[in-house]
Amino acid sequence: MTDVNTVLALAAAQREASRARWFDLLRIPSVSAQPPHAGDCRRAADWVRAQLAQIGFTATVRETAGHPVVVAHHPGPTGTGPHLLFYGHYDVQPPEPLELWTSPPFEPVLVDGRVVARGAVDDKGQTMTWLEALRFWHEAAGGPPCRVSVLVEGEEEIGSRNLPEFLEANAEELRADIAVVSDTNMWDADTPAISTRLRGMLYTQIDITAANKDLHSGLFGGSALNPINLLTRILGDLKDEGGEILIPGFYDEVPDLPAALRAQWDALQFNEAAFLGGVGLSVPAGEVGRSALERLWARPTADVNGIWGGYTGEGSKTVIPSQAHAKVSFRLVPGQSPTKVLAGLRDFIVARLPDDAQVKIQVFSMSEGIEVHSDSPWITAAVPALEAVFGRAPVLMGCGGSIPVVSSMKTILGLDSLLVGFGLDDDQVHSPNEKFDVACFERGIDSHIRMLDALSKVQAR
Amino acid sequence: MTDVNTVLALAAAQREASRARWFDLLRIPSVSAQPPHAGDCRRAADWVRAQLAQIGFTATVRETAGHPVVVAHHPGPTGTGPHLLFYGHYDVQPPEPLELWTSPPFEPVLVDGRVVARGAVDDKGQTMTWLEALRFWHEAAGGPPCRVSVLVEGEEEIGSRNLPEFLEANAEELRADIAVVSDTNMWDADTPAISTRLRGMLYTQIDITAANKDLHSGLFGGSALNPINLLTRILGDLKDEGGEILIPGFYDEVPDLPAALRAQWDALQFNEAAFLGGVGLSVPAGEVGRSALERLWARPTADVNGIWGGYTGEGSKTVIPSQAHAKVSFRLVPGQSPTKVLAGLRDFIVARLPDDAQVKIQVFSMSEGIEVHSDSPWITAAVPALEAVFGRAPVLMGCGGSIPVVSSMKTILGLDSLLVGFGLDDDQVHSPNEKFDVACFERGIDSHIRMLDALSKVQAR
Repeated sequence: MTDVNTVLALAAAQREASRARWFDLLRIPSVSAQPPHAGDCRRAADWVRAQLAQIGFTATVRETAGHPVVVAHHPGPTGTGPHLLFYGHYDVQPPEPLELWTSPPFEPVLVDGRVVARGAVDDKGQTMTWLEALRFWHEAAGGPPCRVSVLVEGEEEIGSRNLPEFLEANAEELRADIAVVSDTNMWDADTPAISTRLRGMLYTQIDITAANKDLHSGLFGGSALNPINLLTRILGDLKDEGGEILIPGFYDEVPDLPAALRAQWDALQFNEAAFLGGVGLSVPAGEVGRSALERLWARPTADVNGIWGGYTGEGSKTVIPSQAHAKVSFRLVPGQSPTKVLAGLRDFIVARLPDDAQVKIQVFSMSEGIEVHSDSPWITAAVPALEAVFGRAPVLMGCGGSIPVVSSMKTILGLDSLLVGFGLDDDQVHSPNEKFDVACFERGIDSHIRMLDALSKVQAR
Repeated sequence: MTDVNTVLALAAAQREASRARWFDLLRIPSVSAQPPHAGDCRRAADWVRAQLAQIGFTATVRETAGHPVVVAHHPGPTGTGPHLLFYGHYDVQPPEPLELWTSPPFEPVLVDGRVVARGAVDDKGQTMTWLEALRFWHEAAGGPPCRVSVLVEGEEEIGSRNLPEFLEANAEELRADIAVVSDTNMWDADTPAISTRLRGMLYTQIDITAANKDLHSGLFGGSALNPINLLTRILGDLKDEGGEILIPGFYDEVPDLPAALRAQWDALQFNEAAFLGGVGLSVPAGEVGRSALERLWARPTADVNGIWGGYTGEGSKTVIPSQAHAKVSFRLVPGQSPTKVLAGLRDFIVARLPDDAQVKIQVFSMSEGIEVHSDSPWITAAVPALEAVFGRAPVLMGCGGSIPVVSSMKTILGLDSLLVGFGLDDDQVHSPNEKFDVACFERGIDSHIRMLDALSKVQAR
């Protein structure tokens, strides 16, 4: 068998070539949200497929109702042993507002050890870390050290809306032993991390209608129902002053944090004052009596992400509008059912609705929280691999965000995910001047080279 | 002295000429809110000034920081006796959306006894009722039967923002015994009305700021303050379930409705079910335990007229925004001080504001409620004049709306107002296809002819 150091030596000798391929992908403006870029999305899919074909994979571009999915397979040296499914996405967020970029978003530049471009890290850069690792395994050893499948989608930034159906239709083909996902961050620039938890999500839009037209507040004020007042009353009731969410039954399936995990997170000595200070805040606003990391990683939330209704222009208009709207989302923890939370939300609203008001609740996103136990053999294998690259052990951290595809792979394919990403908190993901540190990129490649070696030796359950 | 019937006969003989003059004024697109129409506003002022000059007034167009004001005076037959100040405004609301008009807004048409045009009633049509009455008094008797001054402004639809300063600078010139204002409605198409109450107004914009930029709800949810959640909490607290406003001290200066007035209003047998049914509602939403007319005319309100913040586009965006905004207005009753209510609102908000949130409260309108006692000699004189025209006594009604200029004339000039208007509830004021019934217009002229006669005989206090 090829020694992993041979593969690492090859990668080290070809840093420029790796960066050139990464730049090639970054130059394709594969903005999934913008229909004029549909052709670019397909171009990015073709580019990824060609890369995989070059390194010995059976690689195909597969159609969906939206942008295509790249699926590829490699049997590994023996056709047996662990089967890894690498997941990534080739689509990116819109680059707007363009005027805030210091260089054109689809012309990557290397400045002070950082590559600046839309998608630099999310998720083209991260995807390239494992794609390059697979390339060097191919060049050094003729292929990966175990069976590998690849799934690279083009709609992650628009909610992976066609992916669940695709996973269901291709479940047999895609079912592996573990999904490997690089779409998360490190603990800090020198410390790798494995994310063992993701929060789930219920994202809704609440539309309240009262009168059949806008009314004059002088003529109707004191008699007619005001749907904005009503909406603020409902949303204002959502949480008490201590930050507890007041939907009946909301916490029924929220588990207490295990003492061991609490101790582990406490040991991280997360500096919430610095975290909040960076955005101009000073006082934690979540549930009182919980630690910062518990609130961020292991407690559910209820946030109004948007609200609108009535007159919002300059000056004054004395209107009692007919409608009011809000986007309300809940971050959920493993154990909570988005469906049950939605039912609770509906009951909560209806209980506060006068006869004259109608409510419509639209659902834009539903996913369950994810938890991978830290004694998983995949994590046990990944830890020393990362330690060997970084010179320090990875932090087993939670993640307050949601990656719906990880939930889908669990629900539909029965697959746990190993979440190892190389982003940093200051990467400006989804913002102008998105960047990825070259050091993170290169250590990401090396980490995946070592993890492929380590994971290939896991005894699949 | 000229008999009032001579004046009425002249008016009756010249209906077409009256209408033609009214149409001339309607053809001037004097939209005060739209800077390109500044010239049209001045043209309307000049037109009004010329009308007044034609009928014997010393009439001038006076500059302000905005659109000009027309001021005119006539000494009457003796230079003594009651001094009336007629108030009107020549500016109109923007006509948009144009596509909803059945005919061009500035090309008046007579259809089924109604004149359709922007400003048909508000306030060009109403202003023309007394301007025509003054014309016929001039033609029949050489001038009005008592001393008359005229004030026609061009910024009523944008909050009369330069009028208070103008009134202060010209107080001596404008101080009269009573202001006569036609900018209100009749009780119904056959029943005239005198409005004896107007609600006051405090119109604010509340801007709440938390973090110094928009945040990702996955990264920050559970730690960072959400200003929309906070705003909904504050606004949701404004009223209890029974509709009572919870700002401490808010009702301190709200008087109980006098029993006589309550009995008078009860006798009107206002049909709230029909009133609400017309706009698709069925359940009164104001304070419980109060009659409809009391809630509409004699109780204060708190309405959120607009709200916005965060993501309001299609689909979802998991943002915790940095800011949230609302337009919040209060209809006030006579006795309540807008300044005191504003201070109470500020305290109410600040008491609910965490350390990390900043609030800015902008004030767009402040006016006091107005009450004219029904035993006022001016009302006593106007009642039989209106009864003579309509064949039925006028209703002494309240008005839930606010006319800030009436408050200004009271505060700055010490003037009570006699509020007699000829609009109907279905006139589509501020909406497309604004109209004024020709019958209302003509009976308005006759009413003002008779009221001039009656008011000229009042013994000024």
